[in-house]
Amino acid sequence: MVGASPYARKVLVFAAERGIRDRIEPITANPHERPPELVEENPLSKVPTLVDDDGVAHIDSLAICLYLDTLGEAPSLAPLNGPKRWPILRRHMLANGILDAAVTRRMESLRTPEPDRLAWMERQLQTTWRVLDRFELLADELGTEAELDTITLACALSYLDFRFADDGWRSGRPRLSKWHAQFEQRPSMLATRFPV
Amino acid sequence: MVGASPYARKVLVFAAERGIRDRIEPITANPHERPPELVEENPLSKVPTLVDDDGVAHIDSLAICLYLDTLGEAPSLAPLNGPKRWPILRRHMLANGILDAAVTRRMESLRTPEPDRLAWMERQLQTTWRVLDRFELLADELGTEAELDTITLACALSYLDFRFADDGWRSGRPRLSKWHAQFEQRPSMLATRFPV
Repeated sequence: MVGASPYARKVLVFAAERGIRDRIEPITANPHERPPELVEENPLSKVPTLVDDDGVAHIDSLAICLYLDTLGEAPSLAPLNGPKRWPILRRHMLANGILDAAVTRRMESLRTPEPDRLAWMERQLQTTWRVLDRFELLADELGTEAELDTITLACALSYLDFRFADDGWRSGRPRLSKWHAQFEQRPSMLATRFPV
Repeated sequence: MVGASPYARKVLVFAAERGIRDRIEPITANPHERPPELVEENPLSKVPTLVDDDGVAHIDSLAICLYLDTLGEAPSLAPLNGPKRWPILRRHMLANGILDAAVTRRMESLRTPEPDRLAWMERQLQTTWRVLDRFELLADELGTEAELDTITLACALSYLDFRFADDGWRSGRPRLSKWHAQFEQRPSMLATRFPV
């Protein structure tokens, strides 16, 4: 979990600052090799991924920090209820944007031209397939309400239709297809269709 | 703000679902051209960026959704205090991971090989420089506390040292350099140094 990932480090620093570092048991994994034990918990195959004491996986360094912020007795380090929340979130997103750009640049610098470019795109596609398969299994949990998560998912699926229609993401995913077809009919979705 | 960005769409859908869509005045901008009015509000030059009634910019679609969730009288769509928060955050991050992979793939598909690969890396570097310049201006606001935002920033700067030492990010940014040198001495940072 540690190694060269700045996102994993962010989580470990956060835990240490809240005095709960020793409650985390790091497991080293190379996400690029998509180890089954990581993919099982997080189909994006990304680090950090945190499995809590109830066996629930927390995904993305921000979500993990928010979870760690609720453990132990130390003061909150991510006070998302008080007046400081917007400046803190703003700066977090800016700083995280640096990380994103740096990691992208790092990965670019390791790649050689054409064949690897295709391999890289194929990797992104495989990531997409893995997460869609997970959502196909979870389709019953999605429900029909519009919330942060369902909105994000619906937009993601519509974006695949918009940019990568030939992929045929619906094939073999009847429940997710049905869920999306229904959600797409919401006025909020109809009013924001991607350009043709 | 709308156009082809699935992240912008996510924000607009979220606003519509909470009945406050008409309180948002969309401005179309091409983030790849780095228009000054966008970069001023968000040095990452990314859409969506939301400027609220107090002139404060909210960055990143998740942060914007959390902010919109506090406006108006409708029920919360991103209930980050109740028992649903972890499954909601988990699914949000998974869905957003699809978006990230799809957008990356899309941008890859538009690029041609070698010279553009270098241009792409240069673009990531320029993004990094812009955000660092912003933090140099904001150095007094950072303080010495470890919170979600300062932890993320410190990890980002250390990652630049780790992977892109030749960039010399400290040049012309004395206040940020000083802030980072101090923050790096925290036990939590020392205990998580990147491998040499």
